[in-house]
Amino acid sequence: MCEQSERICFSLPEWVSGYIASCRPGKSLEDRMAMVIGAARQNIQRETGGPFAAAVFESDTGKLVALGVNRVTAESLSMLHGEMVALALAQYRLHEYDLGGQGLPAHELVTSTEPCAMCLGALCWSGVVRVVSGATEADARKLGFDEGPKPGNWIQELNRRGIEVVPEVLRSEAVTVLNDYRQRGGVIYNARQLRGSPEPGR
Amino acid sequence: MCEQSERICFSLPEWVSGYIASCRPGKSLEDRMAMVIGAARQNIQRETGGPFAAAVFESDTGKLVALGVNRVTAESLSMLHGEMVALALAQYRLHEYDLGGQGLPAHELVTSTEPCAMCLGALCWSGVVRVVSGATEADARKLGFDEGPKPGNWIQELNRRGIEVVPEVLRSEAVTVLNDYRQRGGVIYNARQLRGSPEPGR
Repeated sequence: MCEQSERICFSLPEWVSGYIASCRPGKSLEDRMAMVIGAARQNIQRETGGPFAAAVFESDTGKLVALGVNRVTAESLSMLHGEMVALALAQYRLHEYDLGGQGLPAHELVTSTEPCAMCLGALCWSGVVRVVSGATEADARKLGFDEGPKPGNWIQELNRRGIEVVPEVLRSEAVTVLNDYRQRGGVIYNARQLRGSPEPGR
Repeated sequence: MCEQSERICFSLPEWVSGYIASCRPGKSLEDRMAMVIGAARQNIQRETGGPFAAAVFESDTGKLVALGVNRVTAESLSMLHGEMVALALAQYRLHEYDLGGQGLPAHELVTSTEPCAMCLGALCWSGVVRVVSGATEADARKLGFDEGPKPGNWIQELNRRGIEVVPEVLRSEAVTVLNDYRQRGGVIYNARQLRGSPEPGR
């Protein structure tokens, strides 16, 4: 934590830089996803957060810009989903709130699990042009994670904002990490338990 | 900025602590909203961010826990909507990712404008039991802000998660701040321009 009370700071776990150095990502989407799922696995094995990770890459070259892992319980901040951490770190490093801003290469977010309602909204403001996901919302729900109020047509809503969606890349590998987290008795950190039936059409 | 590259820090503007000290909030929702709208006004007058502010209060006593203002352009982080800043600061101060956690008083978020898609999702993970808003989504859209992919039944979706919604408290005062921002030529910081028609039923 920083000293000033009007300042908020959060960090990646210390193992992240070593993990990145150990990776030799190729150019394919599967290569990028494998790196992200590996980070989610490290995050639960080292007990530094939930079973989710995400990373921002330059779309064309596959160059890693920022890797994020879930830090909700570790930092006591409910917004610190892997996607939020990765997007924030990328923007922080580039000093640019719009990753699609003039003069920048196209950026994409690769996430080990489909974005929840919060991360879906955050994607729209981030400036990425593509989101690539592994496990599905249904996979996360099976663990007990509430994914929040997403509209049924969320993929079209991203498309309307110029964001391509590529789902279920290495889904089974991503689900394995989710299942391992459950077997370890990992915290399911919903603030609220859902009441009543799901809305129609989900 | 902090020194470590794997750490992200962001701050409130310096004027905030003085502003809070100058306020004498009463207990009513209107009193709480007036304080929040006043902060949004300060934020545009001092040019420290967008025309939005939010605060976390203890619901029963009206005690202020954390005041946040929009810091998107100032900190180059697209997630820093007023609501996200207020929720994060409250959790940071209480060292608790669930503001509805055991042993804590009930907390609520008061926001000068209805939450966008990202902030709607964030509310569900935050642990607040009530959200009170001033200007509407339509008011923000008039300025050109895209509020993102929110489901049409978002109020019921919050209700299902135990979160009460109280809209349009001091709406006209909140709209005045939005209009002043437009007249000043404030940045409308959408990453993407919308393409195509809105989805049906919005």
